[in-house]
Amino acid sequence: MRTYISDTAELAEDYGIQIGRWEQYGDLGTLPFGAMWCVVPPGGVSAEDVHPEVEFAIVTRGSAVYEADGDKVEVPTGGVIVLPPGQRHTIHNVSADKPLVILSLYWIPSPDDDADSG
Amino acid sequence: MRTYISDTAELAEDYGIQIGRWEQYGDLGTLPFGAMWCVVPPGGVSAEDVHPEVEFAIVTRGSAVYEADGDKVEVPTGGVIVLPPGQRHTIHNVSADKPLVILSLYWIPSPDDDADSG
Repeated sequence: MRTYISDTAELAEDYGIQIGRWEQYGDLGTLPFGAMWCVVPPGGVSAEDVHPEVEFAIVTRGSAVYEADGDKVEVPTGGVIVLPPGQRHTIHNVSADKPLVILSLYWIPSPDDDADSG
Repeated sequence: MRTYISDTAELAEDYGIQIGRWEQYGDLGTLPFGAMWCVVPPGGVSAEDVHPEVEFAIVTRGSAVYEADGDKVEVPTGGVIVLPPGQRHTIHNVSADKPLVILSLYWIPSPDDDADSG
């Protein structure tokens, strides 16, 4: 068993925030999803993003506000938000002093998956 | 987009702890993994478990101690631990007063995955 912690992850600037792609961990074997840490500084916001993957995001530190289609949804530490493919979204850290860290998992849905895409 | 929070999940006794299987969420579509919330009370420990799935566990509240093969590993809030298939393990909540919540994702590895199984 091995642990993975955002504090010690290698991060790079992307999407206007800090991203830590899990490809950096060489010992993981094949995962059934892509994975990345997303670190948003206090008061920060990510660039708008849209992609064909389902996004399954776990808030691992702080509190996130996801904005999509004019809606804003708060996700507390430990909460999960699932975004359907093709939904434009931004991530806000509305805290003035606390960092926000998200573990984002993503995958291309199977063609016969008729999940709610709204 | 929709959010999923352990506080409002339906839980049931299993493995000596409280389990909230994600099958309870009818709007998720097909996920490439199984998912369950695991809630361990202060001072609690899960029954020993072993299974053929890879387990990818995110600590969403509190701090976990995973025990396997005589080793103990602490996983703080927001940390991830990955257990290879077939590794017997228990989960301890060593806090006297804080709950422990884990989001456990699991899947059968593909036959050609030669990931480290130690």
